[in-house]
Amino acid sequence: MSNTDSSKFPTVVIIGGGFGGIQVAKQLADKPVEVILIDKHNYHTFQPLLYQVATGSLESESIAFSLRKNFEGQKNLRFRHTEVSRIDRENNTVETTIGPIKYDYLVIATGSTTNFFGNKEIEHYAMPMKSIPEALNLRYMVLQNLEEAILRPSKEERAAYLSFVLVGAGPTGVELAGALAELRNHVLNKDYAELSKDEMKVYLVDFLPKVLGPFSDEGSKAADDFLHKMGVELLLNVKVESYDGNEIKFEGGKSIKTKNVIWSAGVQGVVPEGVSKDAIERGNRIKVDTICRMIGTENIFAIGDVAAMITDETPKGHPGVAQVAIQMGETTGKNIVRMLRAEQPLPFKYNDKGSLATIGRNKAIADIGKFKTQGFFAWLIWMFVHLISLMGGRNRVIVFINWVSSYISYNGGSRLIIRNFKREELVQKDEQVSKPD
Amino acid sequence: MSNTDSSKFPTVVIIGGGFGGIQVAKQLADKPVEVILIDKHNYHTFQPLLYQVATGSLESESIAFSLRKNFEGQKNLRFRHTEVSRIDRENNTVETTIGPIKYDYLVIATGSTTNFFGNKEIEHYAMPMKSIPEALNLRYMVLQNLEEAILRPSKEERAAYLSFVLVGAGPTGVELAGALAELRNHVLNKDYAELSKDEMKVYLVDFLPKVLGPFSDEGSKAADDFLHKMGVELLLNVKVESYDGNEIKFEGGKSIKTKNVIWSAGVQGVVPEGVSKDAIERGNRIKVDTICRMIGTENIFAIGDVAAMITDETPKGHPGVAQVAIQMGETTGKNIVRMLRAEQPLPFKYNDKGSLATIGRNKAIADIGKFKTQGFFAWLIWMFVHLISLMGGRNRVIVFINWVSSYISYNGGSRLIIRNFKREELVQKDEQVSKPD
Repeated sequence: MSNTDSSKFPTVVIIGGGFGGIQVAKQLADKPVEVILIDKHNYHTFQPLLYQVATGSLESESIAFSLRKNFEGQKNLRFRHTEVSRIDRENNTVETTIGPIKYDYLVIATGSTTNFFGNKEIEHYAMPMKSIPEALNLRYMVLQNLEEAILRPSKEERAAYLSFVLVGAGPTGVELAGALAELRNHVLNKDYAELSKDEMKVYLVDFLPKVLGPFSDEGSKAADDFLHKMGVELLLNVKVESYDGNEIKFEGGKSIKTKNVIWSAGVQGVVPEGVSKDAIERGNRIKVDTICRMIGTENIFAIGDVAAMITDETPKGHPGVAQVAIQMGETTGKNIVRMLRAEQPLPFKYNDKGSLATIGRNKAIADIGKFKTQGFFAWLIWMFVHLISLMGGRNRVIVFINWVSSYISYNGGSRLIIRNFKREELVQKDEQVSKPD
Repeated sequence: MSNTDSSKFPTVVIIGGGFGGIQVAKQLADKPVEVILIDKHNYHTFQPLLYQVATGSLESESIAFSLRKNFEGQKNLRFRHTEVSRIDRENNTVETTIGPIKYDYLVIATGSTTNFFGNKEIEHYAMPMKSIPEALNLRYMVLQNLEEAILRPSKEERAAYLSFVLVGAGPTGVELAGALAELRNHVLNKDYAELSKDEMKVYLVDFLPKVLGPFSDEGSKAADDFLHKMGVELLLNVKVESYDGNEIKFEGGKSIKTKNVIWSAGVQGVVPEGVSKDAIERGNRIKVDTICRMIGTENIFAIGDVAAMITDETPKGHPGVAQVAIQMGETTGKNIVRMLRAEQPLPFKYNDKGSLATIGRNKAIADIGKFKTQGFFAWLIWMFVHLISLMGGRNRVIVFINWVSSYISYNGGSRLIIRNFKREELVQKDEQVSKPD
């Protein structure tokens, strides 16, 4: 693609239309810049609700929003539906599947993908859940394995199809465990009358001694109680050794026969090729200074999950949550404007608005500064915050109706297998992590 | 699968959970039979709204409904998510991917698929739209070609990506042509500011001299007018000769450069293997007697699109519409009960409730017996009938909200490319037509 048109404004290229990327773009509206937003999907994904797509409670399209539609009114922005293959820092160019794109400022907002910590076997057989295609794959696999279970005459043969092992007890693992437990408790004996509720098992595994590690002890304890009550079996202080598609083995000898392992035990940054090795921090993140600028560069920023801002207050960088990406995006957008005006950029300051996680109906955890609450009220806060954060009025209404309908009926969601899931297709993962040069 | 359990009730196997199949199942509720419903999808598809999924106005999941959920309350029914590979008439068994299933009565309700009339090249390159996966493929292709068009510097290069040729001016072709014209008229210059409205062309082709052939002359004429006003170019009395993926050629020498050919020019029955050659009628349909029983058999029925009931009043059989399938399903379900009671089965009598087709906002055609209307009132009827026919209250509400939101904003739908469409994947079509033995 050629973007050497008559425009004399500097070009800001943003890679990634996630929480961070769209904030940068928004800040640059009506400013004297030309913005090019690149994403390999033509939509923004509201990742916090992916787990509800995976369990079939929500349609994939109600947690996604067209990037073109979102920026319809922004005249200085062009969207490009493509993937970046490499950053050419010497020539200030990103190489993409549709040709090179020149930049004056570059913002890397590529987010993170699942980290299997180098275990290829687990990567092949365990299911990740970081994107809509991955959440759909997971849904189809779960539903197909319920169908398979029905066909096995003996309890022993059914066990592996009906055991769900979630590795990683952070918010994703906890929320998914809760949703699967509700599927068992409320839906299984309606939709799959041939199966017994007791045969379906949900396990939540973590090598840490508690669930929701980064939450308050109070919140973590409440989540633990909720999960127990809903029948989730917690395996804490437990490390995964291997998974071959049929049996997951843990250090110390214990193992579980299962066809369903879902991996949310870690993430790593998605770093485009062309980033120097020196700029890579633990977790495959890009080291940035206090204005989110990649170290060793003048005009390249990294924000959100892919950025590691190591300071005295944040020796490990910031947590990989939407709020960090949003706020870094805001600061970076504003700083680009300041730099264009030859003003001093302002350092990034994270304003922690708190943490929320939901386990099931009437059951959530809210840690908001010193205010901590668990149960029904936290659950109302969780719903309210997620609804207003969704992009698009139509999406909000549709998600709300789905939630109300599920709440009343105990039987929400459509649970459709639109495309059969085939293990082989998983080999081409949705996200590719490339190595730094 | 073994279904030789203790039940002493006769087994009715129904192949297909479309409009016909689910009616048969419903009629057999609480009757002294064991019902096994087989479908290769775990959902019922509301085909009349597929075209809105294809243009991104509706989520795929709001026009589909889980078959398990639908029959939750019906204790004598079991659902099997599988495909039938062959009917073994001698042994009263259907062979499936999950093993043989015995039947006492068999109902073939497999519907129809796209008919390319043996032209393999067209079959390879043109897009069919008879199932949800096919409608999604079509949507992704259309959206990807708009993205591709943006990247071409010259009008000539863009032309093929921006030309949409719909072959077959029946309800499907007409409705899709209208929806694509609205996409051009209302959405294109918002979402794809780089493209000019005038460059996008929608052609509707038929070898007949008029659109909506089976409708009244009045309705057909009105549809023609509506399409013209919306900027659809009609090519009537025109036969397609070939399509190689880049250029569609017509008899007589005319041709159009296009990457988008959508084929709705004909259908053919989906007949499972094992049906005798003598029982096959024109259009690959199964010949049935006046009680929908396959000729030459005692206990096998065929209903809906796959059935051809040739009588003096219906020398070509019945039209391939939902109402025929629904009514044949009702009659067949009732007749199976009568036969079990050793009562005389009742002959099928089609009650034609009329025809509806919509072209765009405020523009529809209704032929209801002698009552004929076109325009706004017909459009209200069309919406009302389609909403109440949808399965599931939640689906009705969600479709209604989508329609209201589109009507107000002129910019409905989400237009997301969830999975990239690749031509090669089309080779394995969603529907396979097997030959009779």
